[in-house]
Amino acid sequence: MRAFASDNYAGVHPEVLAAIADANADHAVSYGDDPWTARANEVLRGHFGADAQPWLVFNGTAANVLCLGALARTWEGVITPITAHLQVDEAAAPGHMAGVTLMTVATEDGKLRPEDVEPFLAKVGDEHAVQPRIVSVANATELGTVYSVDELRALADAAHAHDLLLHVDGSRLSNAAASLGVGLGDLTVGIGADAVSVGLTKHGAMGAEAVVFLGGREPHGFPWQRKQDAQLASKMRFMAAQAIALLEGDLWLRCAGNANARARELAAAASAVPGVTITQEVQANAVFALLPPGVADALRPDFPFYTWDEATGEVRWMCSWDTTEADVSAFAAALRDACAAVVA
Amino acid sequence: MRAFASDNYAGVHPEVLAAIADANADHAVSYGDDPWTARANEVLRGHFGADAQPWLVFNGTAANVLCLGALARTWEGVITPITAHLQVDEAAAPGHMAGVTLMTVATEDGKLRPEDVEPFLAKVGDEHAVQPRIVSVANATELGTVYSVDELRALADAAHAHDLLLHVDGSRLSNAAASLGVGLGDLTVGIGADAVSVGLTKHGAMGAEAVVFLGGREPHGFPWQRKQDAQLASKMRFMAAQAIALLEGDLWLRCAGNANARARELAAAASAVPGVTITQEVQANAVFALLPPGVADALRPDFPFYTWDEATGEVRWMCSWDTTEADVSAFAAALRDACAAVVA
Amino acid sequence: MRAFASDNYAGVHPEVLAAIADANADHAVSYGDDPWTARANEVLRGHFGADAQPWLVFNGTAANVLCLGALARTWEGVITPITAHLQVDEAAAPGHMAGVTLMTVATEDGKLRPEDVEPFLAKVGDEHAVQPRIVSVANATELGTVYSVDELRALADAAHAHDLLLHVDGSRLSNAAASLGVGLGDLTVGIGADAVSVGLTKHGAMGAEAVVFLGGREPHGFPWQRKQDAQLASKMRFMAAQAIALLEGDLWLRCAGNANARARELAAAASAVPGVTITQEVQANAVFALLPPGVADALRPDFPFYTWDEATGEVRWMCSWDTTEADVSAFAAALRDACAAVVA
Amino acid sequence: MRAFASDNYAGVHPEVLAAIADANADHAVSYGDDPWTARANEVLRGHFGADAQPWLVFNGTAANVLCLGALARTWEGVITPITAHLQVDEAAAPGHMAGVTLMTVATEDGKLRPEDVEPFLAKVGDEHAVQPRIVSVANATELGTVYSVDELRALADAAHAHDLLLHVDGSRLSNAAASLGVGLGDLTVGIGADAVSVGLTKHGAMGAEAVVFLGGREPHGFPWQRKQDAQLASKMRFMAAQAIALLEGDLWLRCAGNANARARELAAAASAVPGVTITQEVQANAVFALLPPGVADALRPDFPFYTWDEATGEVRWMCSWDTTEADVSAFAAALRDACAAVVA
Repeated sequence: MRAFASDNYAGVHPEVLAAIADANADHAVSYGDDPWTARANEVLRGHFGADAQPWLVFNGTAANVLCLGALARTWEGVITPITAHLQVDEAAAPGHMAGVTLMTVATEDGKLRPEDVEPFLAKVGDEHAVQPRIVSVANATELGTVYSVDELRALADAAHAHDLLLHVDGSRLSNAAASLGVGLGDLTVGIGADAVSVGLTKHGAMGAEAVVFLGGREPHGFPWQRKQDAQLASKMRFMAAQAIALLEGDLWLRCAGNANARARELAAAASAVPGVTITQEVQANAVFALLPPGVADALRPDFPFYTWDEATGEVRWMCSWDTTEADVSAFAAALRDACAAVVA
Repeated sequence: MRAFASDNYAGVHPEVLAAIADANADHAVSYGDDPWTARANEVLRGHFGADAQPWLVFNGTAANVLCLGALARTWEGVITPITAHLQVDEAAAPGHMAGVTLMTVATEDGKLRPEDVEPFLAKVGDEHAVQPRIVSVANATELGTVYSVDELRALADAAHAHDLLLHVDGSRLSNAAASLGVGLGDLTVGIGADAVSVGLTKHGAMGAEAVVFLGGREPHGFPWQRKQDAQLASKMRFMAAQAIALLEGDLWLRCAGNANARARELAAAASAVPGVTITQEVQANAVFALLPPGVADALRPDFPFYTWDEATGEVRWMCSWDTTEADVSAFAAALRDACAAVVA
Repeated sequence: MRAFASDNYAGVHPEVLAAIADANADHAVSYGDDPWTARANEVLRGHFGADAQPWLVFNGTAANVLCLGALARTWEGVITPITAHLQVDEAAAPGHMAGVTLMTVATEDGKLRPEDVEPFLAKVGDEHAVQPRIVSVANATELGTVYSVDELRALADAAHAHDLLLHVDGSRLSNAAASLGVGLGDLTVGIGADAVSVGLTKHGAMGAEAVVFLGGREPHGFPWQRKQDAQLASKMRFMAAQAIALLEGDLWLRCAGNANARARELAAAASAVPGVTITQEVQANAVFALLPPGVADALRPDFPFYTWDEATGEVRWMCSWDTTEADVSAFAAALRDACAAVVA
Repeated sequence: MRAFASDNYAGVHPEVLAAIADANADHAVSYGDDPWTARANEVLRGHFGADAQPWLVFNGTAANVLCLGALARTWEGVITPITAHLQVDEAAAPGHMAGVTLMTVATEDGKLRPEDVEPFLAKVGDEHAVQPRIVSVANATELGTVYSVDELRALADAAHAHDLLLHVDGSRLSNAAASLGVGLGDLTVGIGADAVSVGLTKHGAMGAEAVVFLGGREPHGFPWQRKQDAQLASKMRFMAAQAIALLEGDLWLRCAGNANARARELAAAASAVPGVTITQEVQANAVFALLPPGVADALRPDFPFYTWDEATGEVRWMCSWDTTEADVSAFAAALRDACAAVVA
């Protein structure tokens, strides 16, 4: 199967798999007290600062939720776009596991702006109202758009001006960094963020993500929080090996760069097809489009993808670390044919 | 490193790693809607019954806690030995994630008996008291002992007679089955258990466990519970591949059988050493022993292992799927030397 | 102080206080196994049906949250207007205590309509999405509007058609019933609601509310839920006495009727003042108004009330069981003077 | 009914009821921003220190649980006697609402000793183990025994030496103070306790308790915790009036003194009856006794009381603020007769 449904449909990058196999020698201390985890932490501190606190967890839900739970209490809230993965696709895990309340903002492009924080400050100090505590933004966003370094810094400044924290959902941080030509640290510790969930799985890992607290921030008891939320792996070395493989060299950049390039190619090809409208700026590895009626269903058997908005029929196409130029060409050709058939 | 510290110190069995690599082709639907997961579920139903409901999760904490949370409400309790992993080593995850209260029983050998259930029934119906709902036993136990089929059936009958459920923590179910020469189903669905957490990680997997509801039991909303507790893997096929590799053929049995055999050898060798006392019957892959003073610390640099009971100095030695006869011989020799040195 | 700030500023109706004093004789079994509680339950069943299940709790937060928690699980959601007390004024208690997620709808008048339920059904069955389970409406609403019997029945039917439940937040149910000239049961069990939180405190009680499950619905383990949420009173007879005093005869109707009548008078007087705009239909005991700049602050020292919407300056005036015609006249006169002063 | 079942069977002291009636004039700001609450807080600071932080809540479950929840996180534990009300009679509310784990100690007399803390320190720093955080003792205890000032100070010192906090469950603090002839502050802030739950309901209030943080301790966000746990009363003045009535003068002492005196009389009378054994030292308002077979059931229709231990038949008799000498005489006479009848 070759799909444009999700960057989670892709498998494991061969270099990651090789790193896992390399780690599979002899015995190693369990639960993270092993040399691979130590090295992964060093690699993460290389990206996110010498005083960063990295912690590996199993998946993206956990990475985001444990970040939020470590930084906010149950009467505190998280300001985030209404399209955020946290809000849309986590089955209320942020409330269930972390106890936080999401305070959502409607946006055009999936991006929060500093002025969006303001309205949530009206009830600060009111014991009947949830108290804002964190601003959480995904970069790249759920809509495939990317915050620039300046936009992020403005958000961090706005948050800190009101005694709030900035969390970056970095499920696709590599895509954002590759898109902007900057480092992972430039988009997080560099702009003053307080914590980041670093995505690895979508970029070629098998299953591993990192919670990283930034700038010397040390949430009380985080090791127990991770354990208590069932996110402490016994054979941690195999998760650490994945992080090392992706982040020690430039594999993260090659993987994200490929996904982004393929998305740009796909957007270019698709926008040339009569009847197709690209609906969001393509800055990372996602393409959002409106298609002529019937086209989506005609394409899906060969190239699975999801409808993003049932109301408008808008579709989302995701490119992955392993999407090839040939994949894009074949899909674009099928799109042209399907649209032509509909118009005819 | 060659250690007797934990069966989690061992790596991944080569056949499991090969299965992971085999699964790494092309795209696959994420979140478990893929052919590997379908096959893993079939394999699990092969062991646990055609009406079994299997669900893969990341680790053993999750497997146990999600079982309990699916079967009990927040005012209900879980009767379990005071030595249970649930009680000792989960940092209160059962209360935190599942909301259940552990109702513990002191035992000699880590094994609950039907009459242990009785005292917890006194306050059934009293709105000020936690209501017992589940009996949870690990097989093999934390003390390396094994419940026989008859003992389990008696527990299941006792539980059901009082409208309670029986959960089997099967983190080392393979060791128990190998020890008794029976199948995995004989120790679970066969004796009337209602749910089992099936351990894979300790038996050669990289990181995967299964929650299996038995006998047609279908807890309301379990897919959401798993998602909400951050236990739904995006690239599920790689967890499913591990389950298939271990459970489709007899790899589980070879792995557990090796661990058990090495433990018996070690116990035999150790009990022949003057000053060493084996403190629990060796029925699975654990050996518990009392050593002359100073011996544990002398051995640990070369062969890491844990002290089980700080008060008495009792130690625990675990054998793994990859423990070799040579490992055991070398350790036994070192033990003899260390004890001789102390006596001298 | 005479205020129009909240119906919670009023004290205890003399008949309620007398009933409390009457109950203060001798010893009585604690925790609700006393004759007053039995009689209060009977009185509640008189209003809400012979198969209603009534439970007394301390306050309105608890009444609403325990209802929701008894009827929904942690992955389920509650569809409710965005102006709902549940959403605005409970500091996330519904998520914290009951574990439910609020799914909010913007409305003009604080009233949900059957078609508002529809959009939340799109992700039923999707394990990544919160599952709608309850429709919750307050009657009277937070905006002082009232659902008619037909409107409620239509909502109940819409909910049930999609396997959802209808909860009525009856914090001001007496005001709604008095406004419509119907009974408390007509607005709840009569239209097919599944549960109602019956407000007493705002209508002259000292502090007592009732959770009532309707139509034979028996949530599993509710006595334990109430206990575990710290809502089981030891000296329950004094809460029961309040419920009896208000609900056995027509005291609830006299109290709510007075509050409603005063609100109508106030709205009539205010709407005659140049510069004052009444912004919501006055159907219960609340009046919402826009005032000329400076008027609110000029009035507040003598007649405390709250600004409802900081953005527009809209104010809310609440009338209580003890608001007198003289209170209204004095306030209206002050309003006229303040507006005249501003215009001049 | 005249009962010896619970000090919760008693009603409201007339002076408390009068104070409630006095507070029932005019309007008052809701949710605690009223003069009565301010005065109650001052009265509480009079007892517990100028830097004490008092908060009124509805009942004893809430007072204890909110204290614990404010002082410990979900991976932290509370060391307490196995007979503690927290453990036995709260349906797991401490775990459910506060998220803490109880770490229980078996005792002879319901009293914890400094050396009982030691064993729980073994796993400090171990991320797999619940971390002790609070030592919680009830004074008077569930067994009617009383900690002396010196015993409490030793416990506080032991707790603080290990970076733990001391919480006093003061549901019957008045009884302990009356028994020892000291003030309420002497048993709490005076010995270095960090928080106390101050019981009022059992001493003649209708329903009100206080959480008091001591020595300047200010738990982050406690107002929101109280609100979110549904413990913020709207008409708070009526709870404050109860606290003032009991604590401003010596009503608390008169009430507790009477209960204690009656218990001593009852114990003296009962111990003179052949066949009756008093099983705990009578230091407060409880008497524990073993009776000849059949006697308990013979007495209960006229004088209700509870069996404390179903296994041994041990019974508990509680005296209240309103127990009279005549009540005791009548009960003692009935006891003599019933025992005589059994022996005969």
